[in-house]
Amino acid sequence: STEVKERENYFSMTLLDRRSDKRTDSNWLSRKQSHPATVYILFSNLSPLVTLGMGTERSQPPEVKLCRLYHKDVERYMSQTEEVTLIFLGVELQFNKNFMAARNEKVLEEEEDDGLVAWFALSIDPTSAEKFKEKHEDCYFLHPPMPALLQLTEKEAGVVAQARSVLAWHSRYRFCPTCGSATKIEEGGYKKTCLKEGCPSLQGVHNTSYPRVDPVVIMQVIHPDGNHCLLGRQKRFPPGMFTCLAGFVEPGETIEDAVRREVEEEAGVKVGHVQYVSCQPWPMPSSLMIGCLAVAVSTEIRVDKNEIEDARWFTREQVVEVLIKGNQRSFFVPPSQAIAHQLIKHWIGMNANL
Amino acid sequence: STEVKERENYFSMTLLDRRSDKRTDSNWLSRKQSHPATVYILFSNLSPLVTLGMGTERSQPPEVKLCRLYHKDVERYMSQTEEVTLIFLGVELQFNKNFMAARNEKVLEEEEDDGLVAWFALSIDPTSAEKFKEKHEDCYFLHPPMPALLQLTEKEAGVVAQARSVLAWHSRYRFCPTCGSATKIEEGGYKKTCLKEGCPSLQGVHNTSYPRVDPVVIMQVIHPDGNHCLLGRQKRFPPGMFTCLAGFVEPGETIEDAVRREVEEEAGVKVGHVQYVSCQPWPMPSSLMIGCLAVAVSTEIRVDKNEIEDARWFTREQVVEVLIKGNQRSFFVPPSQAIAHQLIKHWIGMNANL
Ligand SMILES: Nc1ncnc2c1ncn2[C@@H]1O[C@H](COP(=O)(O)O)[C@@H](O)[C@H]1O
Ligand SMILES: Nc1ncnc2c1ncn2[C@@H]1O[C@H](COP(=O)(O)O)[C@@H](O)[C@H]1O
Repeated sequence: STEVKERENYFSMTLLDRRSDKRTDSNWLSRKQSHPATVYILFSNLSPLVTLGMGTERSQPPEVKLCRLYHKDVERYMSQTEEVTLIFLGVELQFNKNFMAARNEKVLEEEEDDGLVAWFALSIDPTSAEKFKEKHEDCYFLHPPMPALLQLTEKEAGVVAQARSVLAWHSRYRFCPTCGSATKIEEGGYKKTCLKEGCPSLQGVHNTSYPRVDPVVIMQVIHPDGNHCLLGRQKRFPPGMFTCLAGFVEPGETIEDAVRREVEEEAGVKVGHVQYVSCQPWPMPSSLMIGCLAVAVSTEIRVDKNEIEDARWFTREQVVEVLIKGNQRSFFVPPSQAIAHQLIKHWIGMNANL
Repeated sequence: STEVKERENYFSMTLLDRRSDKRTDSNWLSRKQSHPATVYILFSNLSPLVTLGMGTERSQPPEVKLCRLYHKDVERYMSQTEEVTLIFLGVELQFNKNFMAARNEKVLEEEEDDGLVAWFALSIDPTSAEKFKEKHEDCYFLHPPMPALLQLTEKEAGVVAQARSVLAWHSRYRFCPTCGSATKIEEGGYKKTCLKEGCPSLQGVHNTSYPRVDPVVIMQVIHPDGNHCLLGRQKRFPPGMFTCLAGFVEPGETIEDAVRREVEEEAGVKVGHVQYVSCQPWPMPSSLMIGCLAVAVSTEIRVDKNEIEDARWFTREQVVEVLIKGNQRSFFVPPSQAIAHQLIKHWIGMNANL
């Protein structure tokens, strides 16, 4: 169960403290932007810039790592235009210990260095991206994002999930949805404000100004006999891949009702009890995958061909064969970084007599 | 625990089956729109039209009920303009049994009546709303929505939550956020499509076309001693009201991390273990409140005055006094329809030695 929790957090932030209080401190943000210790990660077309590190042993495959850049590397691209977006991601969790000691001795002046190492995401236009790559031959943009993002370490994946979700919001939500006017970016990238005086979005607080997060339910559906689970596949999946059913939560719906509705819509199976297991941010573009265990109360499958291509009951033994023994001849499931994998594994682990 | 589950679903749909498959069946939708059995609920400025029913006994206060209207009542307001929006809500869960018997005898023709009772929400402009009220003196629009919505029965509250969330989306998201152009409403009100040829939002599937649901964490924070809980209040609350801390889930964040971040930001208290309890849609305008129990690992409170006005540890006895014994002299909590109330009650009920 500990392992489930840890792996399911593949796309959740653990490297940085978001320090949302700093988003409105524009002096602090601008000091940090030009601070030599500040780390920049670069994006083009929603893909992060990476490089290949050496594996710890010569025989290991090279590791994919985020390129950590500095102000001097990126300042020429930073004039914020429509195509250049800057997001404050947070500060590194571990402090410089010497600094902390110094801090106890005297109160910091406003302009003084607080020792926090800030991270920013910078998204640049395609032409600048080309120029950058010419100068840095060992770097490349991880594209298309899936499944490439799954090559990063967990901690870096978390940073990329946060950055990519916010950048995707800016790239699709350029205009005020309430009045159609242009907007400006504020608060370190976490707010957009309509530029038209008198727009109703400027009166009070509205979600039009804040990044979107789409809740999605994803569920391991268990047969009433407890020994089969329901997995399905979409047309666009690689051949042989099956996974948990999933769908967007609708307005005015609970998580539990969304699970029941989606399973009935997609596979014609009725679900009774639903239990939350764990969740995972999924930056495609900005979903929150809410993982549940769902107990079926009917067994006949009627696939809605508009939604999925196939759905079947798999026995516990079939799933163990694929997941634990690694025999993927008959079918396979998503990799361990995906919450679907962990939900399936969670079920296998529950009162298992393997 | 059953009671917790039931009451927490105050704003979740139980009266209707959403039948999302019918949203793309425009013939079916238009037949149902003019069908005499179809039920319409009316909105003006995001408030539903209600009336006062008689309590079952003369001494009881009158009941607030949705006005269930028919096509003949609303057809004059239905020409869909920018200010008039029509949403398909679903069909009534219980069938006409005679019809079901008839159905087994012969296959239905396309144009034949399938016996399903459809519900629609219709939002009209202020002038029409005034005219309507002149004709129907016993009806009024429930405004402002909070706390007025809490007067409805649970089932009607669920219908209103769904309708209000979708209508609020249309009222704030009139323009394409990707290009700023006008949009048109499709699929029974669940989709908007940009009207500008060549807009990037028309290539592939994007969340810009679908209603927004904002996940929010709301948490009952338990003191490390197990016998106190942390409740806070915002400036805009009625005097004396305290409730669970809450906040929006950010992009790239898990539910559990959002709980830890919000509690630390608002009250300076560190949280360790987090456990999901239950959730509730909250149509103000379209949140999904995700209720958790959170175990604090620190106790000193530092209130962020920008976010909340006050936060305190309350003893179990203090909470029992307010919640069970109804003694609200020192403070009070939100009413039983709110998930906060149910989370607090859930804690009181847990290994309680009252
Ligand atoms: N989707 C959202 N809708 C409204 N406010 C948001 C959203 N996301 C973040 N916020 C922030 O949350 C604050 C409102 O929180 P609350 O007072 O709990 O409703 C706003 O002032 C924003 O800073
Ligand atoms: N927020 C959303 N973003 C994308 N698709 C959505 C959303 N809400 C509902 N949908 C529907 O879900 C379908 C995509 O689901 P999926 O194939 O699981 O990504 C779309 O074709 C839409 O009909």
